[in-house]
Order: sequence, then structure tokens, then C-alpha cells
Amino acid sequence: MADFNQKIGEALVRLREKRPLVHHITNFVVMNDCANITLHIGGSPVMAHAPEEVEEMVGLADSLVLNIGTLTKELVEAMVLAGRRANEKGIPVLLDPVGAGATAMRTGAAKRLLSEIGVSIIKGNAGEVSVLAGVEAVVRGVDSAGTAGDLPEVAKKLAKDCGCTVVITGATDWVSDGRRTHSVHNGHSMMGTITGTGCMAGSMVGAFAGTVDDPLLAALAGLACFGVAGEMAAAKESLPASFKQALLDGVYALTAEQAAGLARIG
Amino acid sequence: MADFNQKIGEALVRLREKRPLVHHITNFVVMNDCANITLHIGGSPVMAHAPEEVEEMVGLADSLVLNIGTLTKELVEAMVLAGRRANEKGIPVLLDPVGAGATAMRTGAAKRLLSEIGVSIIKGNAGEVSVLAGVEAVVRGVDSAGTAGDLPEVAKKLAKDCGCTVVITGATDWVSDGRRTHSVHNGHSMMGTITGTGCMAGSMVGAFAGTVDDPLLAALAGLACFGVAGEMAAAKESLPASFKQALLDGVYALTAEQAAGLARIG
Amino acid sequence: MADFNQKIGEALVRLREKRPLVHHITNFVVMNDCANITLHIGGSPVMAHAPEEVEEMVGLADSLVLNIGTLTKELVEAMVLAGRRANEKGIPVLLDPVGAGATAMRTGAAKRLLSEIGVSIIKGNAGEVSVLAGVEAVVRGVDSAGTAGDLPEVAKKLAKDCGCTVVITGATDWVSDGRRTHSVHNGHSMMGTITGTGCMAGSMVGAFAGTVDDPLLAALAGLACFGVAGEMAAAKESLPASFKQALLDGVYALTAEQAAGLARIG
Repeated sequence: MADFNQKIGEALVRLREKRPLVHHITNFVVMNDCANITLHIGGSPVMAHAPEEVEEMVGLADSLVLNIGTLTKELVEAMVLAGRRANEKGIPVLLDPVGAGATAMRTGAAKRLLSEIGVSIIKGNAGEVSVLAGVEAVVRGVDSAGTAGDLPEVAKKLAKDCGCTVVITGATDWVSDGRRTHSVHNGHSMMGTITGTGCMAGSMVGAFAGTVDDPLLAALAGLACFGVAGEMAAAKESLPASFKQALLDGVYALTAEQAAGLARIG
Repeated sequence: MADFNQKIGEALVRLREKRPLVHHITNFVVMNDCANITLHIGGSPVMAHAPEEVEEMVGLADSLVLNIGTLTKELVEAMVLAGRRANEKGIPVLLDPVGAGATAMRTGAAKRLLSEIGVSIIKGNAGEVSVLAGVEAVVRGVDSAGTAGDLPEVAKKLAKDCGCTVVITGATDWVSDGRRTHSVHNGHSMMGTITGTGCMAGSMVGAFAGTVDDPLLAALAGLACFGVAGEMAAAKESLPASFKQALLDGVYALTAEQAAGLARIG
Repeated sequence: MADFNQKIGEALVRLREKRPLVHHITNFVVMNDCANITLHIGGSPVMAHAPEEVEEMVGLADSLVLNIGTLTKELVEAMVLAGRRANEKGIPVLLDPVGAGATAMRTGAAKRLLSEIGVSIIKGNAGEVSVLAGVEAVVRGVDSAGTAGDLPEVAKKLAKDCGCTVVITGATDWVSDGRRTHSVHNGHSMMGTITGTGCMAGSMVGAFAGTVDDPLLAALAGLACFGVAGEMAAAKESLPASFKQALLDGVYALTAEQAAGLARIG
């Protein structure tokens, strides 16, 4: 998939030229990390969740990231408002259905968002995406998850059902738009030792989605860049807080040449 | 108290085998740090505070941590719902009454939670616990606090009144279940130079409470492990942000042998 | 302005003696960093936003920092309550109108706070302050901003209009109380690579406002101390997460002699 490698490098160059404004309505655990990772890859983050302003704010944005990690009824309403306006304006929407399957509220909110908003990219772990795809899954809290399904098939099924690009994160990431299905073999197990790497991956993909037109390329680029930075950080640090710092630094320092050269797309 | 040292080491081994799910309803200042410290000691954190889902979420958990650091009326309602369900399911509940004594709302919320929920462990500083024990105290904001009482006696009194284990954190920590009263002589003054170490101590104890049956042992183990990691971090770093990173790293790297060997229980 | 240099050094000594309690009603992205920077410069932070308690909490405080970075209707109501009580008690209020100009809600909230509360210090970037001063400005999200106005004149105009001290942050910071207008030439471009440095500057100024009587001096001192720490951090670290750690460490380690010697006030 050398073709993708070159495109990923080019996408990173364009992202840093464009500096896309990425509007997040996200959880309160990772807000700071997601804002920083968006800045470091080259975007401009804005966190805003009041229903009175989300429509106006998203109108200024290049992409919208919706993450239900600490959802409330009010936040979900704001997500619907922002999402609809994004749809009207042609702004791509990424949904991270954190904990779908763990509680009825989370599963319901994720499904409601998918039914009321046109989503460009769904990004979750195996359990979350399986739940939304209607495949049997095991979800425990928001962290660990398993599925009975064949992951690339699960991604492809949900992509077809929803007419969008689906990302399943894990040791190997899977990305499908229903027609094309690819894997990303970057990343490191240290990324699981800190909270919020899944959410940060969402911000990375969101920044690329605000830059390039093809959501599948945006997903591959965001995951590969984050994974390459993770590999480099793990080569330097073996303890989690030090690793996190190296990961954030690494996203900032990542060059287009490194991204193009080290992305492992299957 | 060499007996406790061995038990603390064993508890840490069991925690990392079990990977307890620790449901937090906590403040927005420390959410990220509390999630990370829970991960690093070996648990699995979940932050969820919507009243619509907290009962279902806590039903999946091994322990529940309630922290009123940035309380609102809605958060307190969610805490009551989650706490009652935890009681029904036999899931241990830790209460961190941040700022009790500073405002009527905080004192009232802490007392209401204690009256409506069966709490296994109360963990606060001298001022907060004194207020709940009905002993004269000085509380200023949420940080500094003093008391007119004899700390081990204050802990013992509140433990008897509430039928639970009480932790008073400070240069020396005190832990009492009304029958047994012990001190923990680990930790370092650098821990006071960063925000949230008290809250992180709550997450540490919460993770152990989701692992071992004896709340007093859980409290001693959580405090000792956190304190030992703090001592090791202070031996490496003398500035607060570097110290914080070393502390988080240190909790992750802490071995059962170190915990058992370096815990100083009186 | 060697006169100011000496006063800044003295103010830092007094801040660390007094340990002012700085009540924040601030955004959820930077809460942790703002609490830590307040601690590191020598103050005591308290974050509290429930309308039921903000009046009581601010009554204990030495200054109040209001930051609308993730505003909601409820947070703005709490800000009004806290601000009025602060006015009654003579406690200085700092307003950080994050994103004013980006959405009608933010502009409206900032203007409402200015009309209903006596504010001692307004601190924003060029776009935000220009919007409040009625000067044409370009605001995009909450990060980047431009103005058609002459910055020292914009600061002076708004200071006169509101009868307060106005800070415009940027490569050069401008501070005016309508009568006196000064610039601060400290800081480093690395401060723009991490989220929340503007908010942290607000906490720094808030801590000094809780220490010295002259708001203009408080603003110069907070900005200069933060800027000097930023310069020192940038001399050590060239990647953003490492830089952030060095910045936080640097604020803690900053001596009164360094502050007095290295502040560049014009």
C-alpha cells in the first residue's frame, strides 16, 4: 500500500498548511490531551458544548469530533445540534461512541447520533463498533472490549449500513468505507497504559478529516501518524507518564517523511 | 506492623491480577490524573456521571469512588443513585468529601451522602474529616485544613459513628475502622506541590477496595503504595511537574516487593 | 521601567508569604493546569462553580478568576453570582473572555459579565479584547485572532470604558489602566504550542491580584513571571509536552531575583 504512504505524507503537509479548526464536543477526562494533540499535529482545537453556541461554532470549523466518554443528556443534545449544522455545511463529523455496549444510555446515544446525523467516520474499539454493527460483543466499562466477529468484516458491515467510514482501533486497526478495507499496523502496547489514547486518535483523525476529502484516507493518516509517534515514544520511554510526554512531543515532531516512510498500511 | 507489609504486597499482586473496574464520579480538575493513577496501579477506571447511567455502570464495577471536589446538585444526585445501587450489589463505596467545611453545600452534600448511602471508606484531610466528625476545624478553600482534635481519635470517632473505615491524610496518614487504628508514614512533602494528590490517593484506595475485602487493609495499601511511589519520585525530582510525572511512572513501576518492604505502617 | 522590576520581585515575595486563595470558575480544558500554576507561583487554587456555593466560596478568596472557555448558561449564572459577591467584599475579579467574537453567546456573556460585575482586570488576546472594545477584529475559534486596531490604544480605550485594567496577550503583551499603558516583552513562541497558556496567564495574574492592590502591577507581574518562566523553559526544551513540564517547573522555581532581573517592561 505504498500508494497510501505517499498520500499520508502529503496529507500531513496539507494539514499543517491549512491548520484545520477541529470543533470537539468531548469528554471531560481527555479534553486537555485532545486539545494538545490537535495542536501538535498541526490543527487548531476548539472545545465548546453549550447548546446555545455549538451551531455557530461548528459553522467556523473544518471538522467536528463527537465523543460520548462522559455523556450527559445535555451534551448529547448539543451533539445533535452541532452535527446537524455540520451536515448542512458539509463539515465532516467523527463519532467516538465511547462505552457503547456498557450502558443502555451510551448505546442509545450512539445509535441516536447515527440516526439523526450524517456521520463521516465512526471510530471505536472492537466492542463498541460491534455493538453498533449488531454483532455480539463484550464491553466492560469503557476500556476493554471483545467481539465475536471478524473485525474487518464488522467494520465493513457497519460502514455499509451507515454509509460512512468505520475505524476499529486495537493492536491492529481496521478501516473500511464499505468498499475498501485496510489495516494499520502502527502503534505500541504502551499506548494502552495511559488513559485517552483512543480519544486522542479520534482527534488525530478529526484533524485529517478537516484537511482531506477522503474519510478513509483521513482515518488511515490519523491512525498511522499517531501510531508512528507512539512507536518512537516507546523506543525512548518505558513508563507511562514519560511515554505520554514523548508521545505528545512525537506527534509535534513527526515529519511528513517519517509518516510516509513508517506508516504500515495493509 | 510487619503483618500488614506482607498483606499490602499480596494485595498489590491480587489487584494486578483482578484489574478491578473503579467507577469514579469525581471532580473535573483531577479526572485525567485519577484515571491514569487507577490504570497505573493496575485497575481499570471508568468515569461516568449521568444520572441515567450511573446505576447501570456501577453494577459493572468493583468499587465506586465519590469525590465532591467540583460538585453540583446534579452530580450529588448521581452520587446518591450510584451509591444506593452499589450498596444493593455489595460494591464498596469510597467518599472523598473535598472541601467539607469550606461551604455549606459541601458539608451538606457530604453529610447527605453519608446518611443516604452506606459508605465503606471516608477519605479526607484533617479539616474535612473533623467537620464530619463534629470536631472543631479550620477549612480554607479545599487545600489547607486544621483541626482542634487528636487525629487518630477523630478518625476513630467518625469510623464508629458511621460504621466505616476513616482515612485522614496528611504528613502522617491515619486509618481507623473504629476497632483498629493505624498510621501510614510514607509519602513526601513534594506531593503537596501539585494539585490532586489527595484525589489520586482516593483512586488508589478505591482500586484496593475493589480487590480486597477488608477496607482498612485497602486504605493502608492504597496510601502506602502511593506514598512509597511519592518517596521514590521525590528522590529523583525536586520540581513539581517533573515530580508528578515521576510519581505516575512510579505507581506503574512499583513492585509488590517494594510495597511490602517499604510500607511504614504504625 | 526598572521601577516595575523591583516591584515585581517584591510582589512575588509577598505572594508566597500570603498564599492567596484564588477562586476559579473556569473552563474544563485547563482546570488542572490552572490549579497547578496557581500552586506553583505560590497561591492556593480552588475550583468551584455550583451556583449554590460560589458566593460562599468567593467570600473566602483573595481573588476571583472568571474564564468562559467552555461556558454554559449555568456557568455564566454562577459567574454573575460570584462576581457580585466579590464586588461586595472588595475581592478583585479577573475576566478572561475566551472566544469573545467567535460566537454570539461568548460575546454576549463577556459583555453581560462586564455590565453586571465590577471587573478589575480583563485579560484576552487581540481579537477578544478588540471585540469588547468595539474595534473591528477577526476571531477564529478561540485560538487565533487579529484586530484592525492599534493594540495599546485598544487596551487603553477598553480600560477607560470599563474603568478597569486591560491586558492584551500576544508576542508583546499590553497592559493599560486607562492612565498608564505598558508592554511586557517576556515569553516565548513555544507557549503557543500548548493549549491553555492564555488561561494559565490569567491564573498567574489572578494570584498577583489577590496579593497587591494595584491591578496594573498585578498584571505586569503575572505576565512577566509567566513569560520569564517560559523563556527559561524554552531554553531547555524544544518540544511542546516537555516544554509544558519545564514551564510549570519553572514557575515554581522562579525566584524574586530572577523575576525582578529578567522582567522586560516597556
